[in-house]
Amino acid sequence: MNNLSYFFVLCLLATLSHAIELDFCVGDPRFRGEKTPNNVFGNNVTLAFSDVFPAFNGLGISMARLDFAVGGVIPVHSHRTSEVLILVKGSIIAGFIDTNNTAYYKRLEVGDVMVFPQAMLHFQINVGKTPATAFVSLNGANPALQLTPTALFAGNLPADIAQKITLVSQKEVMQMKRIFGTA
Amino acid sequence: MNNLSYFFVLCLLATLSHAIELDFCVGDPRFRGEKTPNNVFGNNVTLAFSDVFPAFNGLGISMARLDFAVGGVIPVHSHRTSEVLILVKGSIIAGFIDTNNTAYYKRLEVGDVMVFPQAMLHFQINVGKTPATAFVSLNGANPALQLTPTALFAGNLPADIAQKITLVSQKEVMQMKRIFGTA
Amino acid sequence: MNNLSYFFVLCLLATLSHAIELDFCVGDPRFRGEKTPNNVFGNNVTLAFSDVFPAFNGLGISMARLDFAVGGVIPVHSHRTSEVLILVKGSIIAGFIDTNNTAYYKRLEVGDVMVFPQAMLHFQINVGKTPATAFVSLNGANPALQLTPTALFAGNLPADIAQKITLVSQKEVMQMKRIFGTA
Amino acid sequence: MNNLSYFFVLCLLATLSHAIELDFCVGDPRFRGEKTPNNVFGNNVTLAFSDVFPAFNGLGISMARLDFAVGGVIPVHSHRTSEVLILVKGSIIAGFIDTNNTAYYKRLEVGDVMVFPQAMLHFQINVGKTPATAFVSLNGANPALQLTPTALFAGNLPADIAQKITLVSQKEVMQMKRIFGTA
Amino acid sequence: MNNLSYFFVLCLLATLSHAIELDFCVGDPRFRGEKTPNNVFGNNVTLAFSDVFPAFNGLGISMARLDFAVGGVIPVHSHRTSEVLILVKGSIIAGFIDTNNTAYYKRLEVGDVMVFPQAMLHFQINVGKTPATAFVSLNGANPALQLTPTALFAGNLPADIAQKITLVSQKEVMQMKRIFGTA
Amino acid sequence: MNNLSYFFVLCLLATLSHAIELDFCVGDPRFRGEKTPNNVFGNNVTLAFSDVFPAFNGLGISMARLDFAVGGVIPVHSHRTSEVLILVKGSIIAGFIDTNNTAYYKRLEVGDVMVFPQAMLHFQINVGKTPATAFVSLNGANPALQLTPTALFAGNLPADIAQKITLVSQKEVMQMKRIFGTA
Repeated sequence: MNNLSYFFVLCLLATLSHAIELDFCVGDPRFRGEKTPNNVFGNNVTLAFSDVFPAFNGLGISMARLDFAVGGVIPVHSHRTSEVLILVKGSIIAGFIDTNNTAYYKRLEVGDVMVFPQAMLHFQINVGKTPATAFVSLNGANPALQLTPTALFAGNLPADIAQKITLVSQKEVMQMKRIFGTA
Repeated sequence: MNNLSYFFVLCLLATLSHAIELDFCVGDPRFRGEKTPNNVFGNNVTLAFSDVFPAFNGLGISMARLDFAVGGVIPVHSHRTSEVLILVKGSIIAGFIDTNNTAYYKRLEVGDVMVFPQAMLHFQINVGKTPATAFVSLNGANPALQLTPTALFAGNLPADIAQKITLVSQKEVMQMKRIFGTA
Repeated sequence: MNNLSYFFVLCLLATLSHAIELDFCVGDPRFRGEKTPNNVFGNNVTLAFSDVFPAFNGLGISMARLDFAVGGVIPVHSHRTSEVLILVKGSIIAGFIDTNNTAYYKRLEVGDVMVFPQAMLHFQINVGKTPATAFVSLNGANPALQLTPTALFAGNLPADIAQKITLVSQKEVMQMKRIFGTA
Repeated sequence: MNNLSYFFVLCLLATLSHAIELDFCVGDPRFRGEKTPNNVFGNNVTLAFSDVFPAFNGLGISMARLDFAVGGVIPVHSHRTSEVLILVKGSIIAGFIDTNNTAYYKRLEVGDVMVFPQAMLHFQINVGKTPATAFVSLNGANPALQLTPTALFAGNLPADIAQKITLVSQKEVMQMKRIFGTA
Repeated sequence: MNNLSYFFVLCLLATLSHAIELDFCVGDPRFRGEKTPNNVFGNNVTLAFSDVFPAFNGLGISMARLDFAVGGVIPVHSHRTSEVLILVKGSIIAGFIDTNNTAYYKRLEVGDVMVFPQAMLHFQINVGKTPATAFVSLNGANPALQLTPTALFAGNLPADIAQKITLVSQKEVMQMKRIFGTA
Repeated sequence: MNNLSYFFVLCLLATLSHAIELDFCVGDPRFRGEKTPNNVFGNNVTLAFSDVFPAFNGLGISMARLDFAVGGVIPVHSHRTSEVLILVKGSIIAGFIDTNNTAYYKRLEVGDVMVFPQAMLHFQINVGKTPATAFVSLNGANPALQLTPTALFAGNLPADIAQKITLVSQKEVMQMKRIFGTA
């Protein structure tokens, strides 16, 4: 997740006179302002998961803001929760692939919504002529996001294993690892 | 829910050659365009729950768009799911009340997020000088939304029972029922 | 919840020689004897939730005893769990309101049972000529009970917000806050 | 479950104008009146599970009334849900056994409550000089109740298998099957 | 569970640079080699539950290896999870009993699979002429296994209560307690 | 899933005299005998999920048998459930990748067990000199298995989208699609 920017929150701890099991805090994750995509994918992902935003603890829900440069992409990824996306700026193609290897994808305009079933591979691509912004919500406080390309090529998985389990050629695996600085 | 506007979706039914248990559809709930508040509360709520948007069936998540006139309000309400809100236009006060009768509320600006714990009473008020728009997501496909004032005074609950269980005066109960046309 | 009486339990901590994950205790929440309603609602609610009765921790169930004076009422309330009620003394009207603002209510006699769906507003009123007693059980160890009138008018929610989100008149809001001593 | 008496309910089917996913019915399972124990165990168990009381469908909770003759017993049994018991007449010993073979049992008087963890063997014995009555609630609409003695000896399980898997002697197995009329 | 052999695991604690909520460990529960049945039942049960194998914590799954001497048996037992069994050596009869006291049992050969529904009593008997081995998996990290005969007769449950709640004769109860050394 | 062999089961439908909600069937998914790997990956996967083995319906558990040719591999894949693996023949490397792109992998010998957390990418490679066989169990009746390479390159996902969301070169994408016959 080294390509994702985190944010920090001030959590106003409530003084609950009889509090035993409940702890609430009023969140303010500052999705405010411009978010400039500055990584290899041309995206900027601002997470509001329970690890960075404690207000979500125990509530079974979380959120993220997705900003796309022109041509930017959220590469194929998955997580254990379902996801719903609302596009608020620009125009993107969003899609997912089901267990029969069938891809469902669609061009979205501002105001459009798309749902991604839990644990299915999915992706978003900015196909408009301007930057794009979307908000997504996930039905879990800590969705366990896994980006497929970085999981396979940007970490400590040896190149020979990566090649064997993906069928990608040795040359291409090394090219991928060079992209992510792990060659 | 007579004060809420529904939307309809075209659901592209996928042709799954080996489909046995899975049925997906690509949603397009058209949160597009302007939504004009035109009810007594000064709001316009566009729901994308599983009853009107079948793509959510079985996925444990849903969404709604909230539009506020100047001074508009989403009256106090609750549902069995948690909710997260992102404000995309205007300025509102959002809040909830916990089981110790303590209210947590905060003025939100564009880009701010707030979380509402499941089943707790909560509300939103447009306190800015312009219309406001927010998107909310809920961690359930059919959240079972219940607006407190309409539940108590806009349905078939007899006035004498309403009075007895709310401690509100008889005169005020009748005034409320007049507002909702059930006096 | 300042209008509810708590009880305390002696929890016999078991000496489990190999205990690693399990801790049981044999509960004795003393629902015994007479319970005298002495609050503004004419009720006496004795809770056996996990915060006061640790034996319920992790078991997904809890209980309460409801005692009603003649004319007493459990005001409209909700919680995130479902509830089942058995009447053991007297005669009451019990009911709930669904998401279409439809109220379902019924006069119960001794031995009658009623079910209240999770998170739906519900209530009980003693309509007999004697005190009444009921036991309720809830499918959660900590149901997060919220009484609607006290949530809105007996806590720290400002009067102007309460008025705005309920449509109740300013005069009536102040009258309610006087009832609960928060004006 | 041939030793349990069922009851039938009239379910007032609500006419919901916009009903799509919700169906409620107001239950009246008639736990009213006297229940005479008339089986080999000296008990009378009146169930309000979802199979006989449809109002419980989807609500995750159910109930039963237990009546004991003097000396009557609910033999050792288990179910996949947790259970809470409230004694309303007489005096009983109730208990359960945990995964370390440790038994927790206690004499209960009127008003006492006891909790039984899900899937653990448990039992109740009337040890008073009068009939006894208790109500139990379970956190599941269909708890899948299994009485150990009848499961092993009152059904179609062959005697030689029963003997092998219980270590009970052949003679005793046959005696048990004679009690249940399956020898 | 005094008749079950435990195993210990070396858990390679991962050094996660940004770990906040996740802790994985790579398990090696050593189901390797021969397992010699040496108890009264003629079995050897090697558990990989979360209490002895921390890698299962939070993952909702666990495993066990069952070894049977010739004529060996896993006595009737239950747990709060479902179970699936695969036979890899020998020939056994496996079965379960449902809530109508109907037993379902079947002779299994190497490669056969059987499913046992959650909380239902079930058993396995080696009916072949050689030792047998099976692996089972359970959909919970800590299934709360309860062997019926040892729960009733090998712990601290008094003989008179055991007799009363099982209908087994006093003489047989004492014989059972002698088998387990608790007479 | 076109590279997976299915099996069929005879399901002995029980005649339950009072059956209302329960339907059991005794499974026999015939994991018996040799399974010859004959696909591009050098594996043979025999599934016992609820879609092909109805006995698993509603029980929250399923199973699969994995057979590996020498050098065979189960390519990187994921599913919404957790998985536990027991190796019964040969020697394999099994591993998974977590949300920090850290790979955990280990050489397993006969009798070794490994756990794969829900929704995380994982894989198995036969690194021994003989064929290998493992059994896996999953804590869901229909785990929604998704093989990453076939999801991306063996279905209807257009090559240009595949390239964009994986960062794999155009040439390599076409090579992959040729492997799967979708170029």
